[in-house]
Amino acid sequence: MFPKVNPMTLENVLSRIDAEMPAATDRLLDLLRIQSISTDPAYKAECDRAADWLVADLASIGVQAAKRATPGHPMVVGHVDGDGPHVLFYGHYDVQPVDPLDLWDNDPFDPQIEETPNGAVIRGRGSSDDKGQLMTFVEACRAWKAEHGSLPCKITFFFEGEEESGSPSLVPFMEENAEELKSDIALICDTGLFQSKTPAIITSLRGLLGEEITIKAANKDLHSGMFGGVAMNPIRVLTKIIAGLHDESGRVTVPGFYDGVPELPEDLAAQWQALAFDHAAFLGDVDLSVPAGEQDRTPLEMIWSRPTCEVNGITGGYTGEGFKTVLPAQASAKISFRLVGDQDPHKIRENFRAYVESCLPADCTVDYKGHGNSRGSVMATDHPAFEQARVALSDEWPEAAAFAGCGGSIPIAGHFKKILGTDAMLIGFAKDDDQIHSPNEKYDVESFHKGIRSWARILDAMTRA
Amino acid sequence: MFPKVNPMTLENVLSRIDAEMPAATDRLLDLLRIQSISTDPAYKAECDRAADWLVADLASIGVQAAKRATPGHPMVVGHVDGDGPHVLFYGHYDVQPVDPLDLWDNDPFDPQIEETPNGAVIRGRGSSDDKGQLMTFVEACRAWKAEHGSLPCKITFFFEGEEESGSPSLVPFMEENAEELKSDIALICDTGLFQSKTPAIITSLRGLLGEEITIKAANKDLHSGMFGGVAMNPIRVLTKIIAGLHDESGRVTVPGFYDGVPELPEDLAAQWQALAFDHAAFLGDVDLSVPAGEQDRTPLEMIWSRPTCEVNGITGGYTGEGFKTVLPAQASAKISFRLVGDQDPHKIRENFRAYVESCLPADCTVDYKGHGNSRGSVMATDHPAFEQARVALSDEWPEAAAFAGCGGSIPIAGHFKKILGTDAMLIGFAKDDDQIHSPNEKYDVESFHKGIRSWARILDAMTRA
Repeated sequence: MFPKVNPMTLENVLSRIDAEMPAATDRLLDLLRIQSISTDPAYKAECDRAADWLVADLASIGVQAAKRATPGHPMVVGHVDGDGPHVLFYGHYDVQPVDPLDLWDNDPFDPQIEETPNGAVIRGRGSSDDKGQLMTFVEACRAWKAEHGSLPCKITFFFEGEEESGSPSLVPFMEENAEELKSDIALICDTGLFQSKTPAIITSLRGLLGEEITIKAANKDLHSGMFGGVAMNPIRVLTKIIAGLHDESGRVTVPGFYDGVPELPEDLAAQWQALAFDHAAFLGDVDLSVPAGEQDRTPLEMIWSRPTCEVNGITGGYTGEGFKTVLPAQASAKISFRLVGDQDPHKIRENFRAYVESCLPADCTVDYKGHGNSRGSVMATDHPAFEQARVALSDEWPEAAAFAGCGGSIPIAGHFKKILGTDAMLIGFAKDDDQIHSPNEKYDVESFHKGIRSWARILDAMTRA
Repeated sequence: MFPKVNPMTLENVLSRIDAEMPAATDRLLDLLRIQSISTDPAYKAECDRAADWLVADLASIGVQAAKRATPGHPMVVGHVDGDGPHVLFYGHYDVQPVDPLDLWDNDPFDPQIEETPNGAVIRGRGSSDDKGQLMTFVEACRAWKAEHGSLPCKITFFFEGEEESGSPSLVPFMEENAEELKSDIALICDTGLFQSKTPAIITSLRGLLGEEITIKAANKDLHSGMFGGVAMNPIRVLTKIIAGLHDESGRVTVPGFYDGVPELPEDLAAQWQALAFDHAAFLGDVDLSVPAGEQDRTPLEMIWSRPTCEVNGITGGYTGEGFKTVLPAQASAKISFRLVGDQDPHKIRENFRAYVESCLPADCTVDYKGHGNSRGSVMATDHPAFEQARVALSDEWPEAAAFAGCGGSIPIAGHFKKILGTDAMLIGFAKDDDQIHSPNEKYDVESFHKGIRSWARILDAMTRA
């Protein structure tokens, strides 16, 4: 499809990557020392400093990059011209807050290489999410450039600084700079391996709809000695509403909820079957044993391809030490829906709210607060890059690469498709135990090393094609 | 039944009460200035000071009283000999904490007389619960003594200092001093009027059983992107358990729950009917309109004579601002049962816990924490003191006294019966809007004044009989 532009062998690039690992690691540690917590305004200058660091680092491999202002933290955008396909690479340089700080064994911004029974790890905030992953691609390009004198194809680097705080500037920026950001394929490195030796190419992402409901009854908290038995208790109403959200078989009961949910294509079902996912081990790690979702679905389907309804928080009445015989004036819950296929978050929100109202007894009212919504995404696995990447990854790792679903919600993939018309391919090297968003976050040195090598192989495969 | 011991007229005593109101009020204000918060160890010396104050005040009307040590705050016990029935009077000198302090219009321990559209009130912590009520009886005795030279009959004064912190020393003290505390009838002043012009004699109290349950699933909080759909969510389990506690008609579903619940005797039912309880106004005051309990019961039955199950608190997952897609490791609720008649709290606790276990799916466990239990009480309304008090109260107040149930739980009445074999009669003058346990607690000057006069009339009626 694209002309062959790299006459020299891939082996040289891979050897250089191996040889340069100490320097590449030092660069990553340098980036990890920048405290780019995007959600806390106190770290605004640090986010800026991370963007500057990236601009300079891209310049060092010949990429003309610039810090681009947004109402929030800056984007970094860099371009390099070339033959062959136009590839955009996305990652984010901002990180999660570090509290509770006392649960860290070391300063989260003084990253260390640590030997562990499972191999060496890079410990520090952002090592896995997402600075380490972002740098796998940059380091692959650096080695390529050193061997070949140029990058393998036309590449756009696109780094965000607000991913951990809801990406408020992302969609407007993409819309305003659509022409500049359009490419043949967007590569996103913010996901994980399927298993520790098995790389994964994400075939679908779930969308996310958040709703907060507050049920109100009396105009103040009441004493249950005086009113108990005659006054409506909003906790009773709220628990009835929540208890009715699933039927006995684990299906969500919101009317029309399954409209637009596709059946798993047979070929994908066969591939997933072949993955021999060890759900006993997956659940056993957190002391569970029985899959709790729809009883006629496999555990992998439950996580990857089926929609869910979960209560993420509930509160009402007295929740401190001891006991207080209060009848509370209100009770509330935060409820989220993971969405797949063509499920329409707006329609589901509407139907959910209608269901809630249908459960309200006399004297009760409800307040709603929407907490964002995004649709599920299905990747264009028939795009040739997917098969090229699958072969390339299978060459690098001990186990063949898997086409895998992802239960999480990464809205950017949908944005690339909707705003730019560009298909996205998500490949990442994080492990389940990386403790992202938690104390003692780490990234395996193996993830970093093989991640860099993987991108070199993928670029090679895409540009050789 | 008892010899007539008071040849002088009741009218003299009542006139003296009227004339002495300024001095009686000053004494109450003095007692209210003592910060006798029993639950907070920081106020131990203040509780002691309140006990001393009462010992001295009783001495001033010729009662030999003493502070009696307990493992907690002291009791005050005083005796005066006399002819006729032996009456014990119970009240408590301790008060609730005052937080949130910023919701008080004045210092809670700098009590003030305040004019309001509904008449003058005594504002301050403990004014209604229970120092003001306690002093109605003491002031009635003072006026009687001043007019007659002696008290009307043999009286035991029994004041507690731990009522607001669960009365840990009460039962042991009563058991150790049973012979000393036995009497013909125990008078308790810690309840309210039926309506602002209608005094009430309590005919029954509900018992109280408290249970806290914590449902546990995974061994840590999980991310709903990774585990949502396959991992059991303990909030889902908890809400199912709670939603199943009532059926559609409002009945509690715990097996055997209604064992021992008596039907309302016909005569009492007729009396309650005659009270013409305005449930629309009662509920309307707190913006409710429809009685929420068992649909085949009257609102007064729901509050006074029927058992209940209420959730007083629930918590699980993320309850702060915004949203977090967490699958919590646990969720918990505080649940209380108000009990009547012969309902056995131990049996109900056992059956409730068996019900909870029957709802637990695989991988879930439950922790229980019991929060006390007491049985319901039915007063001995055939004791002659009840009819004597009813007539006496009806003479004092604009409306005839009501035999009324009480939805609250005042375990002391049961203790008098069980430990001492003494029937108790609960009469009090608090109003619904007294804000007990809350900021800006008050006691109407009318409650205080007519309360004192009521006790003078009741003592007169009991000793003239």
